[in-house]
Amino acid sequence: MSRIRPFCGMETPPEDASVVVYGAPFDGTTSFRPGTRHASERMRIESWGLETYSPSLDDDLEHYAIGDAGDLDLPMGDVGAAISQIEQFSHECFQANRLPLMIGGEHSLSLGQFKAAFCRYPELHVIHFDAHTDLRDDLYGQPLSHASVIRRIADIMPPARIHSFGIRSGLREEWIFARENMDFHPFTLDGLEETIRSLAGVPVYLTIDLDVLDPAFFPGTGTPEPGGISYLDLQRAVHAFDGSRIIAADIMELAPPLDPSGASTAAACKILRELAIVLGRSLSASSQAC
Amino acid sequence: MSRIRPFCGMETPPEDASVVVYGAPFDGTTSFRPGTRHASERMRIESWGLETYSPSLDDDLEHYAIGDAGDLDLPMGDVGAAISQIEQFSHECFQANRLPLMIGGEHSLSLGQFKAAFCRYPELHVIHFDAHTDLRDDLYGQPLSHASVIRRIADIMPPARIHSFGIRSGLREEWIFARENMDFHPFTLDGLEETIRSLAGVPVYLTIDLDVLDPAFFPGTGTPEPGGISYLDLQRAVHAFDGSRIIAADIMELAPPLDPSGASTAAACKILRELAIVLGRSLSASSQAC
Amino acid sequence: MSRIRPFCGMETPPEDASVVVYGAPFDGTTSFRPGTRHASERMRIESWGLETYSPSLDDDLEHYAIGDAGDLDLPMGDVGAAISQIEQFSHECFQANRLPLMIGGEHSLSLGQFKAAFCRYPELHVIHFDAHTDLRDDLYGQPLSHASVIRRIADIMPPARIHSFGIRSGLREEWIFARENMDFHPFTLDGLEETIRSLAGVPVYLTIDLDVLDPAFFPGTGTPEPGGISYLDLQRAVHAFDGSRIIAADIMELAPPLDPSGASTAAACKILRELAIVLGRSLSASSQAC
Amino acid sequence: MSRIRPFCGMETPPEDASVVVYGAPFDGTTSFRPGTRHASERMRIESWGLETYSPSLDDDLEHYAIGDAGDLDLPMGDVGAAISQIEQFSHECFQANRLPLMIGGEHSLSLGQFKAAFCRYPELHVIHFDAHTDLRDDLYGQPLSHASVIRRIADIMPPARIHSFGIRSGLREEWIFARENMDFHPFTLDGLEETIRSLAGVPVYLTIDLDVLDPAFFPGTGTPEPGGISYLDLQRAVHAFDGSRIIAADIMELAPPLDPSGASTAAACKILRELAIVLGRSLSASSQAC
Amino acid sequence: MSRIRPFCGMETPPEDASVVVYGAPFDGTTSFRPGTRHASERMRIESWGLETYSPSLDDDLEHYAIGDAGDLDLPMGDVGAAISQIEQFSHECFQANRLPLMIGGEHSLSLGQFKAAFCRYPELHVIHFDAHTDLRDDLYGQPLSHASVIRRIADIMPPARIHSFGIRSGLREEWIFARENMDFHPFTLDGLEETIRSLAGVPVYLTIDLDVLDPAFFPGTGTPEPGGISYLDLQRAVHAFDGSRIIAADIMELAPPLDPSGASTAAACKILRELAIVLGRSLSASSQAC
Amino acid sequence: MSRIRPFCGMETPPEDASVVVYGAPFDGTTSFRPGTRHASERMRIESWGLETYSPSLDDDLEHYAIGDAGDLDLPMGDVGAAISQIEQFSHECFQANRLPLMIGGEHSLSLGQFKAAFCRYPELHVIHFDAHTDLRDDLYGQPLSHASVIRRIADIMPPARIHSFGIRSGLREEWIFARENMDFHPFTLDGLEETIRSLAGVPVYLTIDLDVLDPAFFPGTGTPEPGGISYLDLQRAVHAFDGSRIIAADIMELAPPLDPSGASTAAACKILRELAIVLGRSLSASSQAC
Repeated sequence: MSRIRPFCGMETPPEDASVVVYGAPFDGTTSFRPGTRHASERMRIESWGLETYSPSLDDDLEHYAIGDAGDLDLPMGDVGAAISQIEQFSHECFQANRLPLMIGGEHSLSLGQFKAAFCRYPELHVIHFDAHTDLRDDLYGQPLSHASVIRRIADIMPPARIHSFGIRSGLREEWIFARENMDFHPFTLDGLEETIRSLAGVPVYLTIDLDVLDPAFFPGTGTPEPGGISYLDLQRAVHAFDGSRIIAADIMELAPPLDPSGASTAAACKILRELAIVLGRSLSASSQAC
Repeated sequence: MSRIRPFCGMETPPEDASVVVYGAPFDGTTSFRPGTRHASERMRIESWGLETYSPSLDDDLEHYAIGDAGDLDLPMGDVGAAISQIEQFSHECFQANRLPLMIGGEHSLSLGQFKAAFCRYPELHVIHFDAHTDLRDDLYGQPLSHASVIRRIADIMPPARIHSFGIRSGLREEWIFARENMDFHPFTLDGLEETIRSLAGVPVYLTIDLDVLDPAFFPGTGTPEPGGISYLDLQRAVHAFDGSRIIAADIMELAPPLDPSGASTAAACKILRELAIVLGRSLSASSQAC
Repeated sequence: MSRIRPFCGMETPPEDASVVVYGAPFDGTTSFRPGTRHASERMRIESWGLETYSPSLDDDLEHYAIGDAGDLDLPMGDVGAAISQIEQFSHECFQANRLPLMIGGEHSLSLGQFKAAFCRYPELHVIHFDAHTDLRDDLYGQPLSHASVIRRIADIMPPARIHSFGIRSGLREEWIFARENMDFHPFTLDGLEETIRSLAGVPVYLTIDLDVLDPAFFPGTGTPEPGGISYLDLQRAVHAFDGSRIIAADIMELAPPLDPSGASTAAACKILRELAIVLGRSLSASSQAC
Repeated sequence: MSRIRPFCGMETPPEDASVVVYGAPFDGTTSFRPGTRHASERMRIESWGLETYSPSLDDDLEHYAIGDAGDLDLPMGDVGAAISQIEQFSHECFQANRLPLMIGGEHSLSLGQFKAAFCRYPELHVIHFDAHTDLRDDLYGQPLSHASVIRRIADIMPPARIHSFGIRSGLREEWIFARENMDFHPFTLDGLEETIRSLAGVPVYLTIDLDVLDPAFFPGTGTPEPGGISYLDLQRAVHAFDGSRIIAADIMELAPPLDPSGASTAAACKILRELAIVLGRSLSASSQAC
Repeated sequence: MSRIRPFCGMETPPEDASVVVYGAPFDGTTSFRPGTRHASERMRIESWGLETYSPSLDDDLEHYAIGDAGDLDLPMGDVGAAISQIEQFSHECFQANRLPLMIGGEHSLSLGQFKAAFCRYPELHVIHFDAHTDLRDDLYGQPLSHASVIRRIADIMPPARIHSFGIRSGLREEWIFARENMDFHPFTLDGLEETIRSLAGVPVYLTIDLDVLDPAFFPGTGTPEPGGISYLDLQRAVHAFDGSRIIAADIMELAPPLDPSGASTAAACKILRELAIVLGRSLSASSQAC
Repeated sequence: MSRIRPFCGMETPPEDASVVVYGAPFDGTTSFRPGTRHASERMRIESWGLETYSPSLDDDLEHYAIGDAGDLDLPMGDVGAAISQIEQFSHECFQANRLPLMIGGEHSLSLGQFKAAFCRYPELHVIHFDAHTDLRDDLYGQPLSHASVIRRIADIMPPARIHSFGIRSGLREEWIFARENMDFHPFTLDGLEETIRSLAGVPVYLTIDLDVLDPAFFPGTGTPEPGGISYLDLQRAVHAFDGSRIIAADIMELAPPLDPSGASTAAACKILRELAIVLGRSLSASSQAC
């Protein structure tokens, strides 16, 4: 008799895990086409067919203590409360010495996990993959939307510690802000390896808005933005973090209702697997080092 | 050169209209499958093919001063603010002696228009068509969701003045509340004509959750509930209000992304046309009476 | 090794058939959502699963000489030429003593087959099932569109010989024309049996716009019009022609791209089977009578 | 933190349940459009929004010991092995005094549960709701397909003990067989209440092919057959079994990929809830009687 | 209160614009899968989310006098009349010194705008991006279809002045014609910059059939042709026209019904924005030069 | 009057053909999302728009004796019988000196055609394009599934004669097996030309699982695997076989229900055309050589 299985065959109970994957099913501020609330549920189902073995890394998810904690029960219609709940859950992860890995949901939710991470690691840097700057002061008067999440982070932390890659859209004033205040790498991932090297040993929060991918490779998202990177570009970027000190991460903005072929969900699942192995490896290397 | 046209060919400028149709594109608290935020936009497009002439009524939308005011700019992710904005807009309608006719959007938004109506007409009754009781105290801690809108109205107004029809789903405690406190007509529209007659001259707020229709006739909604009424049942019910004193109305919960064939949008447009003509006639009859 | 099969298992070669089914894949004047050009192709594929045996009639398609002549090659973008080509093909059918049964395509195409029929049988009556009057003088200046086909027929033949059923939409002036000049039975099929009886022995052209069905039973059409008849209503109506003198017929306006579930195509195929058996029976009864 | 929930909120562990719901995700012999393998998975997800309270019965799923045992791991591509596995699982249910309630999957799978039931209750009758006779000797040489399941049952048990309702399609020879050998009620459910009364106290196997519903109410199935019953007809039929002695049941042929609006899945979930309550009540009444 | 907005936030009234965008919603000759008639309507809606700022050009649509004139009312079913109407509208643009920028619609429509342009600028060259040669003499006897538009242009103008890029499909005789008579650059955009340079100061008509893009980047078109260019290739090509003398342009063959994810519509909108800015810049540079 | 046409305009009767294309519509063991059973039917329809002329090869399908034998009638639910039937059909092809070119269906079916080929050419090599190793010993106890087809071939033939390209997924043990026993080229097609050269004159069986393509270029398949090759990579690979000695080939795993835009079907059709021309040329060159 089969049981409903966790993400990508993560069999470790969350309480024994050093990396905790969890779903944040909320898309209440999405301005155009909603659906990211279904991402974690759908990824669990579609990942049944995904092997735990990564041929590119020649490594296996099963080698590491990675668990799936299920989905948070987030209140639709109240983005502030949703962010607080995520912050609280992330705090508990950090206190229990577990690395939180959130599956969105809309990008605004990253703020909750970021706040908990920043509280624990005030010296934190943020590496940000996205098609959009996400630097608006507000969207239709709402300061906590997906279009403002990096601006809210920049309110809390020196923006020079935010390293954005792949951005190809935004208001003129957002681009001016980014160019003047942040470490800004528009259009591609060029410069990523150098950035990672320069942050060796520094705690890093990695936030991936999956729409950094070109819609050819990832149509299943609310605001597809042509001209992005390929799946293999993103996979190579994730691998580049091998050995770096990521202390929290998220993968946001898969919208399954916009993915009839299932290819975007498959891409999200595979990136999650590759990232989880990289995190598992890095933690296990650093703990051996101690 | 064609211009983008208003709902169902409503050519009267909103400022000259005695009935003002407007869209309320918000679905931030939708618990399962969102999409009602696109209803008004989609209905405007699909209603291009709809004649202004109603054969059943042998009457024409063009005979009455009915205007389309466009969509409100509602803040995604803040249902309270959205409801307030609708309340404010409805207040302005009442002050200008215009009957507001809202196109949702999720059912929670009815609260805003209801509050303005209740403020103007404290002796108001509510007639409510729905598949669901909508009487929850809260949903995942959120008191202002689509599942609670009638309960919120019952907090403000004596529940005995709420007349619900077509309900076929809800928690046991909701059904007990409805049976004990409200004028409750579950499963069908039986008793509607009698109710309308008994309310002759009394101001009535009519709120139509389109999921009162059976999913055969209206699949395009977030929580399809089998066992409902037919399109002709609903059309006849709308016609039954001819001559009654509706002072505000709404048509909620069409979700165009769940309506690939367009048939649900067509049903919503046609009900809107029939209702608008009935409202236009009733107003014009009563103003002649004065 | 399977072969691609004709409609509903019609094995008779068209040249030996007394009823010839053929496809007219054209939707060039469709004003809103095209797709009827794919109807015949899709019906052939979907009818693989349809038995030739009709339980309601307790009769079988295989008992009659009914053949499928394939699709006409109609020139997209020239509705006049398409209609002429259909007229020509129908002429040839009549000359070879074959009853033509067209699968549309848009309703305007009926004009071609009607003209050939009228040429052969000037005493012809038309029985017309539809949601729409189709009585416009023109649509955006085009006199030969789906919205005008019955008006064009009424230009040729006394409109009092046109018997329309199920109509529930149209411009006010179309309804006035219909009520004043035609034998007009709006909203339902009431009166059909009486009409058929009164036409005993008279040659009848039967034109079925499948949108006469309610969209619950037939969502797959370009202009779904709520408030129509059920599938069983239509099937019973087709059976009512058993023994009458239909000399040509058509089934129009299935749009497979708007039928993702396949249910509308299944309905069209089954109506086609029932109608073909009724035609086969009637012909065979009348030839035995001679 | 939410957990993935069982069908319709069935919280009883399967080992403590007197009714055991389980999924049989197999559609290997489906001749045209597959997808029923996804029915149980999808119904679990969609039933999150379904209340356990049935207003029609004024009763609640939570009052009875009904559990969800998850899905069987059935071998795709080997229908014989799948049927055997289901037979084995059903045997175990009967031995543990649990009533098995299967969610298909294709209709052929009913054979497995039937065989176990017949072994336990040789005096069994079968009540069969379906659009199709399912009486073929074989389909493309395969004797164990969805098109033959009732014939296979009739090979094992006197066909006079099979009571079929709602049938409206089949080969001529199937209809002859049914009329001559079975208790056959084509087209509608007329005669059901009488049949149920006549079987008072007799063990009954209830098999529901959901395509007995008209495609208007249930488009999401592989072979939609126009002309069927309404959702309320089926719900009333299920309620008619209240107090009867059903000893096993199944609900087959929901194909979620053909149900983009979700309405068919909602209908299947609600029928499952109503049936489960009826079974729970009947068992509990009979055990009190002892 | 929001208003329905023009393409990509083009706020200039058409009568004050130096570049006039307009929609040509016609697909009457489309041979296989129609839908391009909905392109302009859908692009207006989807472009709500598109910023006016182009990061690649570091320039803004708002800097230039670009207006949206809405859609032409084209007669379905009469491609000749549709082309004439476009020719007439383009004439008026040229007379008012406005650059016309058409959004198709099917590619045949380019003929209308081309004729007006050729009348005004007899020394014109055409630059043509496409997957298909579009050089057929006729398609099913129709000389004015999407498959013949370049041939019709070559009937009017010396074919050596037509520069085709990206072509990867066609009949053998079309390829022979192209190779012998035109400036033909099959498969890629190689040679474009050189061509543009060689045409400095020469009036150029730019016609973009969006199916020049690979279906990975642009699935939403009627005849997807694998093996095409990427979105970034096309965007770079558009930028390459900066400073050249385009006097009319069109973007054709987006078919929104074939674009469920919205990614193709997003690509079309972004190309339109980039092209409009390039046109605005070039006009403004040349007028300053005068 | 048009007739239903064979694949890509292959007019040669199968009995006169030297290359015989045929469909194998079976997906009974598909573990996740079925639909490949519809591939050949859909490719025939979609290939109506595909020219027989290949611009890349500057050659034409019509130059060679290539016929379409239609679809085999495979028994759903019995993969062993389906494979045997394909083996039998392939035997007959080889006996009649015809090269069989199968359109799947699921990949397991390749075993049937392989067995017949191996019987005729025991010195055979296999060239295998795929995203997945397909080397499982069994899948849920089923040894004959799509996940095991290469392992079954490796049971029959020395695995060192299997040359796999493009693989990017599988269990760890499958990758170990492949690396130790086969000629294994993971992730890309690198090394293909060299392999082809080394096999000059050697009979080659070419099996293409179309999911070797990246889902950007080929979303329409049951298990999309991100990180694959582009359409042009695959087309160039097919061209690389020009002059080599392919004696049988197959193209598997297109799932049309997962291809709403039609782009994947278009890619499959075009690869089929290119491959058929390459096969036709090679046969004709070798027969001239004799």
